[in-house]
Amino acid sequence: MIAADHASAPDSGAADHLWMHFTRMGSAATDPVPVVARGEGAYLFDTKGKRYLDALSGLFVVQAGYGREELAVAADRQLRTLPYFPIWSYATPPAIELADRLAALAPGDLNKVFFSSGGGESVETAWKVAKQYFKLTGRPNKTKVISRAVAYHGTTQGALSITGVPGFKHAFEPLVPGTFRVPNTDFYRAPEPFADDEKAFGRWAADRVEEAILAEGPDSVAAVFVEPVQNAGGSIPPPPGYFERLREICDRHDVLLVSDEVICAYGRLGAMFGAERFGYQPDIITSAKGLTSGYAALGAAIISDRIFEPFSRGTVTFPHGYTFGGHPVACAVALANLDLFERDDLLGHVRRHEDTLRRTLEQLLDLPIVGDVRGAGYFWSVELVRDRATKEPFSRDDCERILRGVVAPGMWEAGVYCRCDDRGNAVVQFAPPLICGPAEFDQIEAAMRTVLTDAWAQL
Amino acid sequence: MIAADHASAPDSGAADHLWMHFTRMGSAATDPVPVVARGEGAYLFDTKGKRYLDALSGLFVVQAGYGREELAVAADRQLRTLPYFPIWSYATPPAIELADRLAALAPGDLNKVFFSSGGGESVETAWKVAKQYFKLTGRPNKTKVISRAVAYHGTTQGALSITGVPGFKHAFEPLVPGTFRVPNTDFYRAPEPFADDEKAFGRWAADRVEEAILAEGPDSVAAVFVEPVQNAGGSIPPPPGYFERLREICDRHDVLLVSDEVICAYGRLGAMFGAERFGYQPDIITSAKGLTSGYAALGAAIISDRIFEPFSRGTVTFPHGYTFGGHPVACAVALANLDLFERDDLLGHVRRHEDTLRRTLEQLLDLPIVGDVRGAGYFWSVELVRDRATKEPFSRDDCERILRGVVAPGMWEAGVYCRCDDRGNAVVQFAPPLICGPAEFDQIEAAMRTVLTDAWAQL
Repeated sequence: MIAADHASAPDSGAADHLWMHFTRMGSAATDPVPVVARGEGAYLFDTKGKRYLDALSGLFVVQAGYGREELAVAADRQLRTLPYFPIWSYATPPAIELADRLAALAPGDLNKVFFSSGGGESVETAWKVAKQYFKLTGRPNKTKVISRAVAYHGTTQGALSITGVPGFKHAFEPLVPGTFRVPNTDFYRAPEPFADDEKAFGRWAADRVEEAILAEGPDSVAAVFVEPVQNAGGSIPPPPGYFERLREICDRHDVLLVSDEVICAYGRLGAMFGAERFGYQPDIITSAKGLTSGYAALGAAIISDRIFEPFSRGTVTFPHGYTFGGHPVACAVALANLDLFERDDLLGHVRRHEDTLRRTLEQLLDLPIVGDVRGAGYFWSVELVRDRATKEPFSRDDCERILRGVVAPGMWEAGVYCRCDDRGNAVVQFAPPLICGPAEFDQIEAAMRTVLTDAWAQL
Repeated sequence: MIAADHASAPDSGAADHLWMHFTRMGSAATDPVPVVARGEGAYLFDTKGKRYLDALSGLFVVQAGYGREELAVAADRQLRTLPYFPIWSYATPPAIELADRLAALAPGDLNKVFFSSGGGESVETAWKVAKQYFKLTGRPNKTKVISRAVAYHGTTQGALSITGVPGFKHAFEPLVPGTFRVPNTDFYRAPEPFADDEKAFGRWAADRVEEAILAEGPDSVAAVFVEPVQNAGGSIPPPPGYFERLREICDRHDVLLVSDEVICAYGRLGAMFGAERFGYQPDIITSAKGLTSGYAALGAAIISDRIFEPFSRGTVTFPHGYTFGGHPVACAVALANLDLFERDDLLGHVRRHEDTLRRTLEQLLDLPIVGDVRGAGYFWSVELVRDRATKEPFSRDDCERILRGVVAPGMWEAGVYCRCDDRGNAVVQFAPPLICGPAEFDQIEAAMRTVLTDAWAQL
């Protein structure tokens, strides 16, 4: 993420020993690092007490907002009962209960829950399940993965191999071999023949997956990994018919469809799962982040009965696990979080307000620097361009000078925490806590209007 | 881990939706799964209220024991203040403070702390740091890793590639290429010429690392990953002089020495770090588990100033991170945990009692089934053999029938939770919470004596 490193935070010592993630540590050593000290509802406070709207839910995580008494109480109770125990051949009551609950919530026959402590670990789990599944069912060469351009799936080296952001991978090659990228579904930049036909574009994009499967040979491909709405590249929704077509292709070639919902699950799109929102049936859902609203580290891969079946035979073991996977405190927090979802009808709240969020952000389309506004639910991106008519994207220099130099610090100074991202084209991302409503949407729009006007003047 | 799946636990529904880690799920569906519901001090209670000594600290994790009020309070306070925020270009007070504290505790110039949410993620971080370090300093081909036979470093696909347990890898090949195994330092099974000379054996074992570096070419090797005391294979300590020699070899070939202390750090060996205990200076320490006594998911890779330096230049970024890495609640718990270490002098307690633990376990050497007792600190293994004189190891069938069928359920029924492991030769492992003393050691010895006598009769 691009740091709002011009912010005025008092603790300039942050970088002395803390190696921050995805951070230019050279700048961190000279500029003050923004230090977030407190949260309340949808708002953050830095160490000086300055207030910021958290328009990113931490990192697509804090669905229920900060300061949720119920989640602190659930954690406290479990910490005093059983603060840790592994689920390595043993079980704990919260892990059992949460697995039951997720199986009941997940679509179709997704009934087996393999816990981890985060999203990347869930992705690693899904790929490893797919590989061993095909070994167990007599198709041992099915190991490869198709994923999409610019898609981010994690930074452990298996998840990183699937990731479609070349700049995140080059320094670490060689990675796990046998992964291949196809185009994502960015309709704003759809190839010419499909520029006016979203459905045809979706069909074309899905068919590129089949093309990749055929190019590698179906007998060598284990899985396709896709997000319901792709995060990196800027909240890219699926065109109508895309997932229906993708499911057909996966069925035809006996390739597992993995729905990577680390961001999209648990209400982000107004449904418990993105697959539900778009009406498709994955073989595995990977999830994390919003499951606990971030109050504890937890991830879950949810696997279909069909894929699990060969793992249940005789003495077969899936030789895989994480010490902190399915941590009892994290599971207890997740259960309380799902209770909050129900009690406060957070999904309904998102569905009732998502059109207002969209319309509010679309007001920005009157600014010449705004090329596109896209997303779904409470998960939106505003793409910045040099030229609205030609869709000319920000150059590397624009990203450096304007996105990093003006927009990121400008939004932070304006009191709105969001994400400026240039992994694909330049976007500003918003994924507010699911408790937000029109007042917060307006605050986002007003800050953006001021900052983008300034940015355009400097472009 | 081998399940004590004959235990009588009431919640037989565990396996309906919970896919347990490293578990034969076929057995889990028919036999009741042991469900651990509560912990107090060094003791666990199942759902029926039956008490067990936790002689494994959960999974080498719960250093300070269960029911620690101070850790619950620290978590609660942070949960109510700031329950989540990422350290992706931003920082939080607990992450800053814990990084400062770890830098002060870690040996030598290990001053930069990259947080994760667990051990495997720390290992991934270390390898990726090593790869990019050599890219940044003009030796881009140094990417390979040397590790040791039977060593376990994690299950994400990078960490798994380094792992030396073939059975954990086969179903998932191809993995990250360029990793190579050398012998570990199991003196009990040292090759003939060194059977009576531990120092010569250590020298030989260290030199095998150099042999591997030379065979691959030093220009292609980035790092050596070793545990201070190797867990898998059974708490294998380093022979005298081993690490001194290893450090020389790494220096000679400009290869990073990564001390994987996911198990050994934070008091397990009576010191804050294993490197300290054995007097060597690593370039990176990987850690997790005991840092929070398991009350929250946290890992840390601690990196030297020298290795960090090129990452601090200009706009260089280490494009790596974890959503839940350096979680503020986990950092707050870790700080309180380190406070407990100090206040209760847990390290001193281990040092004062480790000889008693060793002597107590060595009493078992009068049983014909016990071949070796080895370890350090509060980290010990008892190796089972068919024949004491010839050191004939358990066969696969013995592991199945006796280790899994008799010893594992026997110890659980005797009220002692420990680990029966056959990743290498058959061992029973003990790593009690650091609060244990002679009474608990005697309880372990008594249970083992009964169970192993029974096992010998059935062998």
